[in-house]
This record gives sequence, structure tokens and C-alpha cells, in this order.
Amino acid sequence: MIPTDTHLQIGSLLFEGLDQIDLTGPFEVLSRVPNSTYRIYGASPEPVRDVRGLRMLPDATLRDAPRLDVLHVPGGHGQEALMRDAAILGWIRDQAAGASHVLSVCTGALLLGAAGLLVGRRATTYWNAVHLLPFFGAEPVDARVVIDRDGEDRTWVFAAGVTAGIDGALRLAAELRGDEAAQGIQLGIQYAPEPPFDSGTPGTAPPAILARARAAAADITARREATARAIAAELGIRVPGGDPR
Amino acid sequence: MIPTDTHLQIGSLLFEGLDQIDLTGPFEVLSRVPNSTYRIYGASPEPVRDVRGLRMLPDATLRDAPRLDVLHVPGGHGQEALMRDAAILGWIRDQAAGASHVLSVCTGALLLGAAGLLVGRRATTYWNAVHLLPFFGAEPVDARVVIDRDGEDRTWVFAAGVTAGIDGALRLAAELRGDEAAQGIQLGIQYAPEPPFDSGTPGTAPPAILARARAAAADITARREATARAIAAELGIRVPGGDPR
Repeated sequence: MIPTDTHLQIGSLLFEGLDQIDLTGPFEVLSRVPNSTYRIYGASPEPVRDVRGLRMLPDATLRDAPRLDVLHVPGGHGQEALMRDAAILGWIRDQAAGASHVLSVCTGALLLGAAGLLVGRRATTYWNAVHLLPFFGAEPVDARVVIDRDGEDRTWVFAAGVTAGIDGALRLAAELRGDEAAQGIQLGIQYAPEPPFDSGTPGTAPPAILARARAAAADITARREATARAIAAELGIRVPGGDPR
Repeated sequence: MIPTDTHLQIGSLLFEGLDQIDLTGPFEVLSRVPNSTYRIYGASPEPVRDVRGLRMLPDATLRDAPRLDVLHVPGGHGQEALMRDAAILGWIRDQAAGASHVLSVCTGALLLGAAGLLVGRRATTYWNAVHLLPFFGAEPVDARVVIDRDGEDRTWVFAAGVTAGIDGALRLAAELRGDEAAQGIQLGIQYAPEPPFDSGTPGTAPPAILARARAAAADITARREATARAIAAELGIRVPGGDPR
């Protein structure tokens, strides 16, 4: 927990083709953290379109961001186009270096990986990308939210896919401002979920539905794998049985 | 369930001061409904700002909307400013008349009420506004999602506050395209929530936290009550013990 009289700068990265709820889920929580400024940062001031078409605007550009205390990196298909983007990866690396807390949601974790920030971390990501974490030097953990602390007193919060960002952000809010603050936010957003089906993970979804989801994602998954292998080779990471080329 | 070869027009209402996840939660689900077109409609083409500052753009204006099969009305503090807006209420009334399914999230239900659409309905809304439903002629139901069907074969899905829109939209997706389609969407968005606390409802939140939340919302609650009483009088609705003036 951070002293309550310390004002926090909290920032989310916005990019074309993100999955919007990777950002808007945590937004709902992080924008309500007491004594904080929450802003969304984009490469340009223009609106971006999420993977399903929602158009959102950043509050400021990356270069206008202050040193952030809390960095939030969402994911979504558009993450793949940024895995070689030196400006974005450099911004992530610089901001993570100065932050006390870093939150990734879904395949936002792969962006942290491409920035070289996952080496030695325990982490998670979208269920269909968890197998890629070792290519970035991370140990995959089968949990909806994984909290890891590094030797520099920095806290890493990794949320699994998409809607897991809400759970991750609430955990983060508790890290920042204590359990009562997080509970107040939870009541404010009436977060007492009742999923109508038990189909939210590969282990619980009906097998035919899982097979269809994997097939529908085959293209993006193959591209992510190829990128992860190339980055592993550059980082000098040996993946057990992974044969990075 | 609607025949799978019937293309569906699904639309969300966007307005200044909405609570963004009332829209973006259902967006995540509704934008993935098979054989459908999903669009966001605003009074103007300009961006709007949600209650915490997120800027979003509509896809089209209200007047450009086709007849919708599925109408989605979000809530949030900004709803209060629309309770006397004849253009918005008229659009809601017209679209609801032509729709087969109507979804409200949070205090979006009060907009349906102001449009005269809640008379005789079983409904729900944000926990801090449930007591207002009788002023609009509705019977409040203590559930996260309430499904009501009217005599014209129209299905009404009422989601409670804020994040309940995700649960409501999944229920709606199942109504539209069957359980398997909804389960596929649920897996796609990895919706297997794990709230870190049990503090998402007035019945589960610690009493001190509930008291603080009620106090913080006292102003908007008072304004909503005054509006609800006035509308009840206009609609000729007698509220038991409510003494509408």
C-alpha cells in the first residue's frame, strides 16, 4: 500500500486494434482510485478503433505522459502489430522502469515480453497465448490474476484474458490503496458477477466450443507464435522443447 | 431464439456522462453475436465523455439508425440529464416499439421509465436506484438480471448496476442465438470472474463502505428521486407510500 497522501499518476496505453474491455474494464476501477490522476495515452491524439470497432480517444500522447506510478498495458489482436514497434516498446520499458506497479491484461503481457520485461517473471495472459510466455522468459501460472514482485520493489499484476482485467484492476487497487478502497470501488460498480454459463475458460467450456474458438483464432495464434520465437532468439532465451529459430 | 439466417441490427445509445462500462461491457458481447450488425448511436457525431472521462465516438447519429432488432440503453449519472429530453426519449420509444429485444443496464432502466416503457414490467437497475422503479410503474426484482416478456412477444432484459451489463448481455445473446453462441462468446472474452472481495452489492459490502457509497451518491440520488416523482405524477402512477407530488 502506498501512503494515502501520495498522489498517483495512473496511465493506460491505447492502441489500434486493442480489445476495448482490456482497457475499459480496468478504467472502471483505476479511474476511481482515491488521490490519483488517471489518463489514457496514445501514439497520436487521433481516435483508435478496437478489434470490434469501438472508437476511443486518448487523453494525451505518449510523449506528454508524466512519469507514471502505475502503468496499464491492455492487449487484443492489435498487440501483434506493436511487437516490433521500438517507440511503443521503448515507452513501455521507460515507464515500467519508473513505475511502482505494472498491470497487463490479456495479450498486453506479450507487449511486456517484447519489451524484455518478462524475464524471470511469473505471469499469465489470454488462455490462447499462455504457451507463449516462456518465449519471453516468463513462467506461466494458471491463475486469473498473478501478482509478482521484483527485486526493485515493483509490483507486477498480470490479468488473464479480456474480462480478467476487472479482477486484476481490483487486486491492483487493493495493492495501491488497501482493501477498503477496493471494496468501495467494487460496490460502486456493482461487481458481483453472475455468468449465465460456466464457459469462460478452456477447462470449463464445452469441447466443441473450445475447438471452434481455437480454429477461429488459428491465424493470430500462428502469427503470435512466430513473433514470440523470433524474440526468444533475440533475447537469447532457450525454450524447453520450444526450439526457437 | 431468432432464426440464425435472420440478420440482426443491434444498437447501443451513447450519451454524455454515461458510465462507460454500461456500454462497453455489453459491447464486448453484442459485437460478437453471429449474423448481426452492431452500431453505437449518438445524438451527434461528436465524441462524448463518460462520467469518469473516457471519450468515445458513436458510429452514427440517432436519425441514421435503422429499425433496430435489439436496443441497448446504458445508464450512469448522465442519464438524469436526459429524463426530459423529448428527442432521446422519443427515439428510445420508437426503437423499442420496433425491436424484438430491449436491454437496459444500470440506470438506463430509468430512461426506459421516462419513456413510459416500464409500466407493468418486472425490472431491475443500479442498487442505489431500485427504489425508484415503482415511480415508473415497474415492479422491482432483486436479481442481477431480470428477463420480462410483454404481450407483443418482445423480450426485455434488465441488468442491475454497471458491470451487470456483461451478465445481461450474455443472457441476451443466448436469447438471440442460443446457449452455444453465448458460451462461445463467454470463452472468447474469458469471462470466468473472480472478484477479490465480496463487496459488490449492498447486502454483501461492509456496512461502513455502503454508508460511504450512499453518502457520496446522495446528490444524484435526490435528483433522480425528484425527477421520478414528477414523472410518476405525469404518468398517473400511484406509488404505494410514495406520495408522488
